[in-house]
Amino acid sequence: MRKSAADRFRHLFNRSLVFVRNQQNQQHHRLSPIPLSSSPFSSMASDSPFPVTAQNINPQVLKCQYAVRGEIVTLAQNLQKDLQANPGAHSFDEIIYCNIGNPQSLGQQPITFFREVLALCDYPALLDKSETQGLFSADSIERAWQIVDQIPGRATGAYSHSQGIQGLRDTIAAGIGERDGFPCNADDIFLTDGASPAVHMMMQLLTRSEKDGILCPIPQYPLYSASITLHGGHLVPYYLDEATGWGLEISELKKQLEDAKSKGINVRALVVINPGNPTGQVLAEENQRAIVEFCKKEGLVLLADEVYQENVYVPEKKFHSFKKVSRSMGYGDNDLCLVSFQSVSKGYHGECGKRGGYMEVTGFSPDVREQIYKVASVNLCSNITGQILASLIMSPPKVGDESYESFMAEKNAILSSLTKRAKSLEEALNKLEGVTCNKAEGAMYLFPRIRLPEKAIKAAEAEKTAPDAFYCKRLLNATGIVVVPGSGFGQVPGTWHFRCTILPQEDRIPAIVTRLTEFHEKFMNEFRD
Amino acid sequence: MRKSAADRFRHLFNRSLVFVRNQQNQQHHRLSPIPLSSSPFSSMASDSPFPVTAQNINPQVLKCQYAVRGEIVTLAQNLQKDLQANPGAHSFDEIIYCNIGNPQSLGQQPITFFREVLALCDYPALLDKSETQGLFSADSIERAWQIVDQIPGRATGAYSHSQGIQGLRDTIAAGIGERDGFPCNADDIFLTDGASPAVHMMMQLLTRSEKDGILCPIPQYPLYSASITLHGGHLVPYYLDEATGWGLEISELKKQLEDAKSKGINVRALVVINPGNPTGQVLAEENQRAIVEFCKKEGLVLLADEVYQENVYVPEKKFHSFKKVSRSMGYGDNDLCLVSFQSVSKGYHGECGKRGGYMEVTGFSPDVREQIYKVASVNLCSNITGQILASLIMSPPKVGDESYESFMAEKNAILSSLTKRAKSLEEALNKLEGVTCNKAEGAMYLFPRIRLPEKAIKAAEAEKTAPDAFYCKRLLNATGIVVVPGSGFGQVPGTWHFRCTILPQEDRIPAIVTRLTEFHEKFMNEFRD
Repeated sequence: MRKSAADRFRHLFNRSLVFVRNQQNQQHHRLSPIPLSSSPFSSMASDSPFPVTAQNINPQVLKCQYAVRGEIVTLAQNLQKDLQANPGAHSFDEIIYCNIGNPQSLGQQPITFFREVLALCDYPALLDKSETQGLFSADSIERAWQIVDQIPGRATGAYSHSQGIQGLRDTIAAGIGERDGFPCNADDIFLTDGASPAVHMMMQLLTRSEKDGILCPIPQYPLYSASITLHGGHLVPYYLDEATGWGLEISELKKQLEDAKSKGINVRALVVINPGNPTGQVLAEENQRAIVEFCKKEGLVLLADEVYQENVYVPEKKFHSFKKVSRSMGYGDNDLCLVSFQSVSKGYHGECGKRGGYMEVTGFSPDVREQIYKVASVNLCSNITGQILASLIMSPPKVGDESYESFMAEKNAILSSLTKRAKSLEEALNKLEGVTCNKAEGAMYLFPRIRLPEKAIKAAEAEKTAPDAFYCKRLLNATGIVVVPGSGFGQVPGTWHFRCTILPQEDRIPAIVTRLTEFHEKFMNEFRD
Repeated sequence: MRKSAADRFRHLFNRSLVFVRNQQNQQHHRLSPIPLSSSPFSSMASDSPFPVTAQNINPQVLKCQYAVRGEIVTLAQNLQKDLQANPGAHSFDEIIYCNIGNPQSLGQQPITFFREVLALCDYPALLDKSETQGLFSADSIERAWQIVDQIPGRATGAYSHSQGIQGLRDTIAAGIGERDGFPCNADDIFLTDGASPAVHMMMQLLTRSEKDGILCPIPQYPLYSASITLHGGHLVPYYLDEATGWGLEISELKKQLEDAKSKGINVRALVVINPGNPTGQVLAEENQRAIVEFCKKEGLVLLADEVYQENVYVPEKKFHSFKKVSRSMGYGDNDLCLVSFQSVSKGYHGECGKRGGYMEVTGFSPDVREQIYKVASVNLCSNITGQILASLIMSPPKVGDESYESFMAEKNAILSSLTKRAKSLEEALNKLEGVTCNKAEGAMYLFPRIRLPEKAIKAAEAEKTAPDAFYCKRLLNATGIVVVPGSGFGQVPGTWHFRCTILPQEDRIPAIVTRLTEFHEKFMNEFRD
């Protein structure tokens, strides 16, 4: 049953890619996957004045999809322009972007201490001026001095070591050690421009051909499918179980691994996103142990997306890094290839635009590590502002520091508000006809399932669009709320979902709930079977 | 003659890759290129405890080389550690990194206005405080207000549009328009984390298989060879003519294009680096017109690396962008696919660590542009600090602004000092026995040719190293000066060079010249035939 579901998924996943592509190109080969050797632009081909056409670019680029900034966002941006040009033309007066985990775009304020330190590091001349004392906290000045001193030659505008500034890596390693209770080696840290380039680096390293597979959760964050496609690999899906709160079952991993092997796929790695994106579940430690055991036994690299490690909203769950879990099982560098991704974009800070992040790379042989370093060196280094911020999030103010109390107040206000927002939206969604929504234990998203009436599905087909995309577009046009169709993340065939962030500011949530509820009622009234 | 030189180059280029790889791996298959299906690590293979080995990673990763941060830099870093641990252990007391265009690492100070604006944008709360007036220039405060106002929701920590913040792109487009005298559309600008990711994006877009070729200058900046290798394409070399100051001859482009075509290579693009890296020449406008004509006629994408556009040191030469040249020839969007790369890392500002840059993409069809946007969107956006800085370098203070005079003083001091440094080093190199060095008209490098005695070549062979790498390692060990062997950039077979930046501070140049001269004399005395 599961196996056939997986096969159906693969078909449908291809199908939904075709949907999107066709919509973009206003062509209509719906339901028939486009072979890569042909092209959706064939009518334009022969007489194109352009030497580069969609037919002769890298087919992996053509094939890759990233729904989080896909068609629905383009539609929203056009609506926004329309609203600016013709205020009052729509029944709403603004677009509310719930498509992407981008907290500051929705009004979340940056953490003061972090920005103080960044400003001082950007313009270190301030450190020598007496007026600075009145403008900045004492510990931000002290921290900025420390950081500037850690940079060789105090050159805050120089390329750093390709893994990042040594002193900042030391700070991060200490922070990881404190978090886990197990030591971290600064040489294992590779600072990157957000987590995305780190994921690409690992996919690039592990993928030799379409016969190399990566086990990915379904639903997944589409960076993974996009990166696997761009690097010419094979996404091996494993299904999270919606019925058990998006549980990750080892039996499912085993089955999908065997299935892939039987098709000649050489599975190289397992992606686990914890807390989950788009699904919001937080893994139990017991479950994590079983995952570690599975990867060790099968010789799989464990790619642990842990960028939401600070985003846990329920008292009964706690984040445990896979590094901590594997070390607590007695496993060391010779037992497991583990890569942990972290980002400054998420957590309570949400500094998406700073593009800071790192990967902690353990369990690889020295010669492979050398190759990872070499690829990092081709791009020279990640941005220094992001590097500094990555060190700050792993070493925030401590008890006794001047900023400590205000820092904790800012942090706790954000996290407790996110908890409330998650709860309000989850409850509102569960009240809608035909909608069920699992608990957002962590991360920044809800991923409700919508049971669409047959009539709505037919209407979607008539518009050459996926049913969930049809729903989301209707929602956008009626309310200005932007959510991403489940088909962009993958879902069990025949089920439909959307991803909605919990990020609009708290005072906006009631209005969003009202708009959403009204829309849904009207939608169901229009399409109810 | 040229054709056989090219063939010999290809052999030698492979050979030098093997050199480097073998040195790294302490294996000794010198002169016999390693087939990709086998591995230099075969002795480790069968009993490796690691599931990921150099034998089963992506062979393109294994093959790629980036000499600017390669073996010689690792040796230098080890020497530096040794110097710290055992001061006095060597005949020099510090390592002087002339391997990379990283001005601030060698003491160049950042431009005050740029850093003022960055600090204010990083911590916009400063804008509301009265003390700020005393600490920052009036125009930096005004500019920061403008920029913060251009960011939707004033959210300086949010992901931006995947091409970059609209208002900053407008500023950059205006700056390009002013530079060229031809308009630039902000929609053509893609802001990137330095120029490197932009180059990768284009290589990724254009490369379908090893049958797709990119015409690259030899010598070249090894980002190009690394990126082509990583994306599985084919580097089609064209030789710059050292005898005419590294002239770029159209006849050579034609010959190499025909040669590649005859081998079944589908050449897609031409890379031109102007001002040249590592060669320092500045192209004449007439030459650029001929290049534009060639690309238009042959349907090649012109990839114009223009990151050194502010670095021109001779009064008789002037930088002209390829956009300006093509527009002045009457060519528009339907005539030429042109991508111009720019970076905040170079110029007089040298803000390498900020990882800001952009590409201006013109002449591509809307459907291909959509694909470029999609790939940009997978990584969400480039870092905002780098985006802001890119807007500042394309729109620095103007006459009448409070900062104008101090800004111009800083800028001119850096550029006139670079001119002097280039001249001093060039003269010193030309005085060395067997060394000839072309004029550094622009960029940040000298690329002297060294005529090595046969005995030195034999000694290098005995050490399983390329003769130029042998020279550079000897130089490093004797003086602490780090330069990059010419084999990392490519060179006519049988000739040997190294790349040396002109970036050490002016007061250091005499000592460097003395050390270099003494070393060279001793080296020649040791190996003279």
